[in-house]
Amino acid sequence: MFKTLSDLSGVYTSAIPCGIKKDKLDLAYIYVPKAVASAAVFTTNLFCAPCITRNRQALSTAVTKAIIINSGNANVMTGPEGITSTNQSAEEAAKLLTLKPEEILTASTGIIGVRFPIEKLSTGLQTLLRDPLQRHGSLTAEAILTTDLVKKEVYQVEKITGGNLEIAGIAKGSGMIAPNMATMLAFLVVNVDIHSSDLQKMLKVAVHNSFNMISVDTDTSTSDQVIVIATGEVKITTSEFPILQKILNEACCSLAKKIARDGEGATKLIEVRVTGAKSEADARTVARSIGDSPLIKTAVHGADPNWGRVIMAVGKHPEVTLDPTKLDLAFQGITVLNKSNPTGVTRSELKTLLEAESVVIDVNLNSGSEQATFWSCDLTKGYIDINVDYN
Amino acid sequence: MFKTLSDLSGVYTSAIPCGIKKDKLDLAYIYVPKAVASAAVFTTNLFCAPCITRNRQALSTAVTKAIIINSGNANVMTGPEGITSTNQSAEEAAKLLTLKPEEILTASTGIIGVRFPIEKLSTGLQTLLRDPLQRHGSLTAEAILTTDLVKKEVYQVEKITGGNLEIAGIAKGSGMIAPNMATMLAFLVVNVDIHSSDLQKMLKVAVHNSFNMISVDTDTSTSDQVIVIATGEVKITTSEFPILQKILNEACCSLAKKIARDGEGATKLIEVRVTGAKSEADARTVARSIGDSPLIKTAVHGADPNWGRVIMAVGKHPEVTLDPTKLDLAFQGITVLNKSNPTGVTRSELKTLLEAESVVIDVNLNSGSEQATFWSCDLTKGYIDINVDYN
Repeated sequence: MFKTLSDLSGVYTSAIPCGIKKDKLDLAYIYVPKAVASAAVFTTNLFCAPCITRNRQALSTAVTKAIIINSGNANVMTGPEGITSTNQSAEEAAKLLTLKPEEILTASTGIIGVRFPIEKLSTGLQTLLRDPLQRHGSLTAEAILTTDLVKKEVYQVEKITGGNLEIAGIAKGSGMIAPNMATMLAFLVVNVDIHSSDLQKMLKVAVHNSFNMISVDTDTSTSDQVIVIATGEVKITTSEFPILQKILNEACCSLAKKIARDGEGATKLIEVRVTGAKSEADARTVARSIGDSPLIKTAVHGADPNWGRVIMAVGKHPEVTLDPTKLDLAFQGITVLNKSNPTGVTRSELKTLLEAESVVIDVNLNSGSEQATFWSCDLTKGYIDINVDYN
Repeated sequence: MFKTLSDLSGVYTSAIPCGIKKDKLDLAYIYVPKAVASAAVFTTNLFCAPCITRNRQALSTAVTKAIIINSGNANVMTGPEGITSTNQSAEEAAKLLTLKPEEILTASTGIIGVRFPIEKLSTGLQTLLRDPLQRHGSLTAEAILTTDLVKKEVYQVEKITGGNLEIAGIAKGSGMIAPNMATMLAFLVVNVDIHSSDLQKMLKVAVHNSFNMISVDTDTSTSDQVIVIATGEVKITTSEFPILQKILNEACCSLAKKIARDGEGATKLIEVRVTGAKSEADARTVARSIGDSPLIKTAVHGADPNWGRVIMAVGKHPEVTLDPTKLDLAFQGITVLNKSNPTGVTRSELKTLLEAESVVIDVNLNSGSEQATFWSCDLTKGYIDINVDYN
């Protein structure tokens, strides 16, 4: 059976339409009253939203017990009034949930530079939190969307000594920043008893190889955040931490891939796997260079097995260590270059393979043992349509 | 009167169709028999073409007296046979022009990974160089094009003590690398008497602020090169070097802007001017970040004054020094943000201004006195059409 956020014991969540968007769910909460730990990773954009600044501070002083999320307005570049609105949202939610303000994090996604309608959110919170013990995870997954076409949810479970280790999460995002709508948000809950500092370390590792390894359009939102809360229900030993790390990695990767596949205008997921790099940094640089290249993204869209473009993208960064005579390249598992020599596989053969909805590009630099995987999507006219005018 | 490469005294050039392309000019030469100096800047791509490797070597041992250029085949990733073909082209041209092979540079642009048709080029050279004292600069400007829609030529003159300092140049390029066709090539001639080492220093400066500050699609060709040859005709004193530097900068900027404006699918030139940066590196990073952003490029295409996207692009690089409360932003000279506060100029007012064929975005970081200018173009469905399938 399909499971989501609210299927974890002690996790409450729901959403309502509060009027920021027209006739759509736009205000949600995630409430974990007995939370024992929390961790988060935030955008590095220098023009970050007031909620990011406030969340950084709140997270450093208390365990997060609730998250309030709105879509339809990002509350970015909205001056001192925007900062006041962010603080007010958290304070009002805290009062309604009988929590301290610092136990609340907030997230806003939507248009930039438009006054934040705090009165709508304020009235909405009264309705939303009247009975805070709702369990409608899929409504929340829907309420946080902007230009996304599909909801993004994940649930995974692993056996450990203390019982079933469960993780569930939701995400949104259709561009790293999409139009002036959009941002990448992810909220996860795990059911283990752990310290925030340990959870933070593991989240950082998971994000490094998941959300930090996807791109729709190379742009970085002012409001990105990934938050994880631990319910404390299941005991975990430090020797079982690798299991938690693994399940956290998998959940983050699953959500990240869902974001890449649902990129604005996208019709295909591109997975780039780079192996044989001298350093992890080299592997990540080459994987990202291929995944970000507009020429490769358009070629994939047209199922054009244009391997010259991949060569170009691999060689684009002079700081990478590689031997231009030693490259192995495969599309969909079919070797196209063997030690930089074309294998003679025909264009029409490759074209058929590239018509699939997921395209895998494997590059072996044969210069070491490090590797990295990056996910992106094809570049289509749909992306242009969505972004030429967004008001 | 419009002047071009062959209007400089002692500069000979022409082009013919040799059959690499179908019914189009595809083989050209530039011949400066009395050249006194030469300099060049080459691609940093690690998979560089054999002609780049050979040119680096040749340039270090002799003054360049002729350049042989073909379009239609880039001769990249063509194995040992490709290297032999490059050497053979230079040797045959040297014989026909009674020069040493190292006095010849070559340039190839076009498809990657397809066997280079050396026999066509070889036969073509016999015809092309039968009378090498031709003066058809505009034919050469045409013969070097691939996906370009227009020829790119520049001519400038300044008075110095020794006479008229003249510079003329041609360029091609429609993407940094466009499809598997394309590459950025530029060939310039100045009529002064100068040493190659001085010319090399000046070319490096000029390229830094021109060809290195444009982008169509962020991709870097395997075959980019900018070559300048000095005819030695006019005496120049070292105190007049700043005049030469200025005219070289202007010629390179003029050609670079022509390349950006003629970007694949482009309908508009975007000029991004960043001032008030703490360092030149910061200014260049921010200018490039704005000019490269697919969200800004699509917004410009739609004449959408979406300044939230510019904010995003300015803040995207955490290494840049800036105060998020101090940003000035203008579209087409109209201030949109003053110390990060919206000035209230209306959307419809800005939309009309953005419908122009050239869009100027000014950003003042108010954090120092360094500046940079970057040129790019809008992102359109035409780019997708050109690149989904290029065979």
